[in-house]
Amino acid sequence: MPKLIEKRSKKVGLPPGSPVHIGEKRAGKVKITIIDYDKARFQEKEAKTIEECFPFKDKPTITWINIDGIHQVDIIEKIGNHFDIHPLVLEDIANTGQRPKMDDFVSYIFVVLKMLYYDEKENETKAEQVSLILGPNFVISFQESEGDVFDPIRERIRSDRGRIRKMGAAYLAYALIDAIVDNYFIILEKIGEKIEDIEDELVTNPTPETLQAIHNLKREMIFLRKSVWPLREVISRLERWESSLIHKSMGIYLRDVYDHTIQVIDAIETFRDMLSGMLDIYLSSVSNRMNEVMKLLTIIATIFIPLTLIAGIYGMNFKYMPELGEPWGYPLVYFVMLVIGVLMVIYFRRKKWL
Amino acid sequence: MPKLIEKRSKKVGLPPGSPVHIGEKRAGKVKITIIDYDKARFQEKEAKTIEECFPFKDKPTITWINIDGIHQVDIIEKIGNHFDIHPLVLEDIANTGQRPKMDDFVSYIFVVLKMLYYDEKENETKAEQVSLILGPNFVISFQESEGDVFDPIRERIRSDRGRIRKMGAAYLAYALIDAIVDNYFIILEKIGEKIEDIEDELVTNPTPETLQAIHNLKREMIFLRKSVWPLREVISRLERWESSLIHKSMGIYLRDVYDHTIQVIDAIETFRDMLSGMLDIYLSSVSNRMNEVMKLLTIIATIFIPLTLIAGIYGMNFKYMPELGEPWGYPLVYFVMLVIGVLMVIYFRRKKWL
Amino acid sequence: MPKLIEKRSKKVGLPPGSPVHIGEKRAGKVKITIIDYDKARFQEKEAKTIEECFPFKDKPTITWINIDGIHQVDIIEKIGNHFDIHPLVLEDIANTGQRPKMDDFVSYIFVVLKMLYYDEKENETKAEQVSLILGPNFVISFQESEGDVFDPIRERIRSDRGRIRKMGAAYLAYALIDAIVDNYFIILEKIGEKIEDIEDELVTNPTPETLQAIHNLKREMIFLRKSVWPLREVISRLERWESSLIHKSMGIYLRDVYDHTIQVIDAIETFRDMLSGMLDIYLSSVSNRMNEVMKLLTIIATIFIPLTLIAGIYGMNFKYMPELGEPWGYPLVYFVMLVIGVLMVIYFRRKKWL
Amino acid sequence: MPKLIEKRSKKVGLPPGSPVHIGEKRAGKVKITIIDYDKARFQEKEAKTIEECFPFKDKPTITWINIDGIHQVDIIEKIGNHFDIHPLVLEDIANTGQRPKMDDFVSYIFVVLKMLYYDEKENETKAEQVSLILGPNFVISFQESEGDVFDPIRERIRSDRGRIRKMGAAYLAYALIDAIVDNYFIILEKIGEKIEDIEDELVTNPTPETLQAIHNLKREMIFLRKSVWPLREVISRLERWESSLIHKSMGIYLRDVYDHTIQVIDAIETFRDMLSGMLDIYLSSVSNRMNEVMKLLTIIATIFIPLTLIAGIYGMNFKYMPELGEPWGYPLVYFVMLVIGVLMVIYFRRKKWL
Amino acid sequence: MPKLIEKRSKKVGLPPGSPVHIGEKRAGKVKITIIDYDKARFQEKEAKTIEECFPFKDKPTITWINIDGIHQVDIIEKIGNHFDIHPLVLEDIANTGQRPKMDDFVSYIFVVLKMLYYDEKENETKAEQVSLILGPNFVISFQESEGDVFDPIRERIRSDRGRIRKMGAAYLAYALIDAIVDNYFIILEKIGEKIEDIEDELVTNPTPETLQAIHNLKREMIFLRKSVWPLREVISRLERWESSLIHKSMGIYLRDVYDHTIQVIDAIETFRDMLSGMLDIYLSSVSNRMNEVMKLLTIIATIFIPLTLIAGIYGMNFKYMPELGEPWGYPLVYFVMLVIGVLMVIYFRRKKWL
Repeated sequence: MPKLIEKRSKKVGLPPGSPVHIGEKRAGKVKITIIDYDKARFQEKEAKTIEECFPFKDKPTITWINIDGIHQVDIIEKIGNHFDIHPLVLEDIANTGQRPKMDDFVSYIFVVLKMLYYDEKENETKAEQVSLILGPNFVISFQESEGDVFDPIRERIRSDRGRIRKMGAAYLAYALIDAIVDNYFIILEKIGEKIEDIEDELVTNPTPETLQAIHNLKREMIFLRKSVWPLREVISRLERWESSLIHKSMGIYLRDVYDHTIQVIDAIETFRDMLSGMLDIYLSSVSNRMNEVMKLLTIIATIFIPLTLIAGIYGMNFKYMPELGEPWGYPLVYFVMLVIGVLMVIYFRRKKWL
Repeated sequence: MPKLIEKRSKKVGLPPGSPVHIGEKRAGKVKITIIDYDKARFQEKEAKTIEECFPFKDKPTITWINIDGIHQVDIIEKIGNHFDIHPLVLEDIANTGQRPKMDDFVSYIFVVLKMLYYDEKENETKAEQVSLILGPNFVISFQESEGDVFDPIRERIRSDRGRIRKMGAAYLAYALIDAIVDNYFIILEKIGEKIEDIEDELVTNPTPETLQAIHNLKREMIFLRKSVWPLREVISRLERWESSLIHKSMGIYLRDVYDHTIQVIDAIETFRDMLSGMLDIYLSSVSNRMNEVMKLLTIIATIFIPLTLIAGIYGMNFKYMPELGEPWGYPLVYFVMLVIGVLMVIYFRRKKWL
Repeated sequence: MPKLIEKRSKKVGLPPGSPVHIGEKRAGKVKITIIDYDKARFQEKEAKTIEECFPFKDKPTITWINIDGIHQVDIIEKIGNHFDIHPLVLEDIANTGQRPKMDDFVSYIFVVLKMLYYDEKENETKAEQVSLILGPNFVISFQESEGDVFDPIRERIRSDRGRIRKMGAAYLAYALIDAIVDNYFIILEKIGEKIEDIEDELVTNPTPETLQAIHNLKREMIFLRKSVWPLREVISRLERWESSLIHKSMGIYLRDVYDHTIQVIDAIETFRDMLSGMLDIYLSSVSNRMNEVMKLLTIIATIFIPLTLIAGIYGMNFKYMPELGEPWGYPLVYFVMLVIGVLMVIYFRRKKWL
Repeated sequence: MPKLIEKRSKKVGLPPGSPVHIGEKRAGKVKITIIDYDKARFQEKEAKTIEECFPFKDKPTITWINIDGIHQVDIIEKIGNHFDIHPLVLEDIANTGQRPKMDDFVSYIFVVLKMLYYDEKENETKAEQVSLILGPNFVISFQESEGDVFDPIRERIRSDRGRIRKMGAAYLAYALIDAIVDNYFIILEKIGEKIEDIEDELVTNPTPETLQAIHNLKREMIFLRKSVWPLREVISRLERWESSLIHKSMGIYLRDVYDHTIQVIDAIETFRDMLSGMLDIYLSSVSNRMNEVMKLLTIIATIFIPLTLIAGIYGMNFKYMPELGEPWGYPLVYFVMLVIGVLMVIYFRRKKWL
Repeated sequence: MPKLIEKRSKKVGLPPGSPVHIGEKRAGKVKITIIDYDKARFQEKEAKTIEECFPFKDKPTITWINIDGIHQVDIIEKIGNHFDIHPLVLEDIANTGQRPKMDDFVSYIFVVLKMLYYDEKENETKAEQVSLILGPNFVISFQESEGDVFDPIRERIRSDRGRIRKMGAAYLAYALIDAIVDNYFIILEKIGEKIEDIEDELVTNPTPETLQAIHNLKREMIFLRKSVWPLREVISRLERWESSLIHKSMGIYLRDVYDHTIQVIDAIETFRDMLSGMLDIYLSSVSNRMNEVMKLLTIIATIFIPLTLIAGIYGMNFKYMPELGEPWGYPLVYFVMLVIGVLMVIYFRRKKWL
């Protein structure tokens, strides 16, 4: 299950603006890739040291520096120093406990988002923090680990498909955000399927496991909600923002990704409502089954206890019990028992218990 | 049941602005009808190819192009190119997972709505996406499949009833929206009747099926809500919008359709409140019946178990049990049993259990 | 019970602005009364045809035309034509499914309200739609049927009590709205009494009928809420409205009726909260009684089942059961049974079950 | 319990602005006290007739007229006429069903508040309406009955403690409001203690009376909320109001009493949350006890019913039952019963039921 | 448990602006520490009397006066008089029942916050009130008791780490607020761990203690919420405030601490949602176990009661019961009982009860 809250205790007491990696421990080297392009040119390379990125700062071409891994804080600090990024921003990049947000620092815009992916092994949704720094002619993106969500964008730049090579850095940033939001729909489809499975189960054969599954999905919805809700405001602010970094023509694209975010939020709210409804159904189906059980018990007890009394009566050892000596006594008892039993069954039929 | 969420996965990774049909698979040819009119003239025809619509773009008369079927993406693209529609709009038209929304592109206004109809076969409400493009002298409408909701408007144009032939393209767009919203009331009446049926059932004979029916209606309300809520804002924005495409005199008409939308939303909220109340009633009626069952069991057990003990006592084989030898022993036991039974019944009467 | 939603289906497909009577079918003639007054003069008459009202349009005196009955649509249309009322307004007057609202048409203001009255026969609250048209020197009011809520106002005009003859048409409209809102308090008192009755019942003797009564009141609250909530905004807008029809000095009066509306809404919300609390109490009292029943069953079973076993044991037919031959065996069994019974009772006393 | 709603029916039909006493019937004379002061002078007297107050209207000193009792409507009307108070204000003063509110009439400000006090006899919170009229150099306060909440203020004026004698009429009005709001904290402390008592009870020994107590407190919270919530807006408006009657320097004092009001509202909301949580605890403790009862029943039945069967079997009268003739038969039956009993007990231990 | 509400009753009736210590009684001396610094100089000392602080008021260096203990009201008054603090502020400092708030008095800004710490002994979260007065070149902080939350800041000033020595008094105030907010995360981690523990327990072995634990955490969340929610607005107002005391360059720092506050609130809301979900799970697991108990009882009763009847029948003493004389009678009864038992078991298997 996703951690409820990231451990921040090691950070307490440090002066503000000290980047400390907070989040899941990750091994492995940090991977830095650089894509540099304009309408005519295209260059792609994997940087061995962070210093290789520095010359791109002042080139007129669009540069996308993607950094997979934020656990090596010195890399973040070096890049921050070269690109004049505020220490508080560097701190936020290293700390994965951020909410999605957008901050304008005039010479660059800083955006934090949550990328969601489905972990097949643990059968649950996970989130990774993605930070974007949008400068006049560059975008720096930070991911917690290597992912493939941005691959189609790389491919589009390489093969000059769509509009991307003709537009500026803001369009690149938009494309990255759009890729992340588009990815949410895959998660939603997975969860939608799970909900439909549970809904079928609820009708055919509800078990305590069904309840657990509903609970887990509810928990996942809380988690998704927390990741996606603030995004709405982030993109809405980007759209309305008056910044020299975002050209007015970007409005329509940002509006589009805003619409997608609203659709995601809508779906999350719908799922939450559905899960609440399913919990009610589950609880009342438990009550219903309890009712069934009690009815059976009552029927059995109500039919047999009187019969047992009759048998008990003729098991008494009184000397003067005239029926006992009669040959019709024994079959008559059977007959009486049968009549009582049948009457009871008729009674329960009437009450619609049988 | 309506799908919780439309499959979008095939779209992931494509550049923004690539129209891909997302929604229920539909067969059959796309049907294109053109109605062209002004105060004096009227012309109606079914176009065989999309190219037949193109000349109407620059005619001074009002043209309504209605396209039934959005699964042939090339048609959408062709019309989009000719009428200078933004690729993101074309993408939205083809993707049925949109929320109702309104976007102004200066030279045209794009509106997405959900049309609701009642599927008698599957006994549930379904939604279809309707997209409208309102230009200076034309309206292009896209439906998922052929429907009859717009027929009265066609009839009004043909026979020059009401105001429609005297007004511009914005009035036509308004008439289409009004027809869709008016249609919601039919759905609401159907659901209102269902709710009243269930309410009667709840009083006379609640069964687990009643619960299922309440749940299904709740699910349907979630679905309706999602389709209608955003419409409120769409129409409200249209009303307050300052666009050369919408003349000020349209204000009162848009205000009217806005009022209808609010009435629909009101009814949906009322239904939701009612269904919640009904769920409570159902649950407590289950508890009440459980109580009844338990009372019967307790009455039977409480009356007969002591009697069985008495019978058991006189069934013991002790040698020295003086009562056994007496002739009045047997009838006395019956008498004692009767007294105990009657006392118990009186006791339960007092407790109002009988 | 009040209809959940008014049948509108017969209206679907008609051009906007076609008045069609939607609501409960009513028989009888439409009654038209005219009251015409100023500081000095006063005239009152019942009009036989609608045309009799027409001359009052241009008189400088204040004219109040009250129309009881909206099922004769032609009357509404005639008056609409003469007083230059917009067709959409006429449509709204005839359709009783409106929400309270206020629309300014510059030369007149249109207000829709819901009048509530208590139907003693069916023991429930009913609503009627009242529409007001406020012109520069006239007020036209439409009611669904003849009512007596406006009688005190008629009386005040006749006898020149209070301020009413000295003020303009806006004050008359205000007086009508005030009368309707004042009437809500009577409904609230009735409902308040019902709630207090049920609250007593809940403590002394809750039955399934109590639950049904709570449910019915909840339903009634939903209904009241729907009628009164929008009124708040209507009056608030009237108060802040800048219209030549409403003189600034009206502000304080409208503020007063606004305060009353808020008090009504407050009471409705309080009632809703109370009813929710009562439902919780009811449900837990059902659980409590179930507990009582189960305790009795358990006490009986726990005391008698072991005793029955003892009796059963000495009813066995083994040859070598030495106790059976002893004269103290039989009384000893009684003694043992007594001891077990007493111990059990002590145990249950300890557990506070007895 | 506090009335859900004040009877207003006798007012229906009267013209607006007719003061009618609505509220609890009270006997006794109306008491009028006048305190007149400035930095140097101080005068205090009890007026026998309302006319004694009239000369103070035009004195330059600050005059506080306090009227205990609003059931003699003629007194309210006389004072209203002399001080030029609007009839609607007089109506509001006499009608105790007001919400807290503030109205500016340019030459005076009218404020309605609810004073809360704890009725030890009936063990519940009660509310009284306090109306204040703040003029340029006077404050008129109306209470429903004689109270001691304002005594400390009287004492402060008499003994010239604090700032009160140096400040104007607005400060006096503020001091009165502050005294009322301060008094709320006493009520909250009482309720807080009750809640903590119930919380202890809930853990040690929950009974249906506990539920009733929770319910009563919830009801009281609804009532408190209704009295205090609107006060927030009243004071906030007073603070931001631009009126010649309230000097700018009052801002900080009004801000202080505003903070107190927010603290009261905070506490009320906290109490509501706590009471909801306690209801949940109560309900689940009822379920838990039901579980205990059922477990005991099941254990008893499961242990003894099989043993009873064994005894029953050896009570059968078949001729050929070889065990019956053996001397070890009887002790063996006891042994078998013991083994079965012990096994059952072990089984229940395993299941943690014992 | 934290007190629901601070006792304020002793304050009632005092004139506004009279500082009275309201809160937990604390013994011990009040500790006053002074830290005075600028870029170049640094001085730290513990003041024995409050008068030692007075000279620092007019020094150009930044002075931080920290006062641990607010129960000696005369100290607060003396410092207030010297630094020209409004009496209402002094009253607020002494009264620990404040909500977090921010007030601007032009020459200084007054901020109230809640510091949270985890009391290991009583195993619960506690709050202390911290008041800050930010002047042009000084910060005065008041704590209820000596704490170590500010130690890292002292250390940073002493060793000239980070930016703190280079910045003004506003940065110092920010650093104090940041330290308090950072501390919240430690509390949240503790609570997060508790919630995860309970969640495990809920799956493996839910007991009434689990319920109590959930309830206690819910109570703690209500308490935390009350302390942190208003902080959001406090910091947001500080950020947007136009005051000569807060330089524009502070914006980014305040934005950062604002983000942290939002993260804290987010976590609190998430925890609340989780706890609600856990309560549902607990309740339905209680129902499930009840179901299990009832099933066992029903199975036992349903199998054994019919067998007991059979045994009872052959225990009857009729003379003419031919089976009794047959040698196969006894084994046949066993066989029949076995068959019935097996059929019952099969039936329950089918029903998935076994």
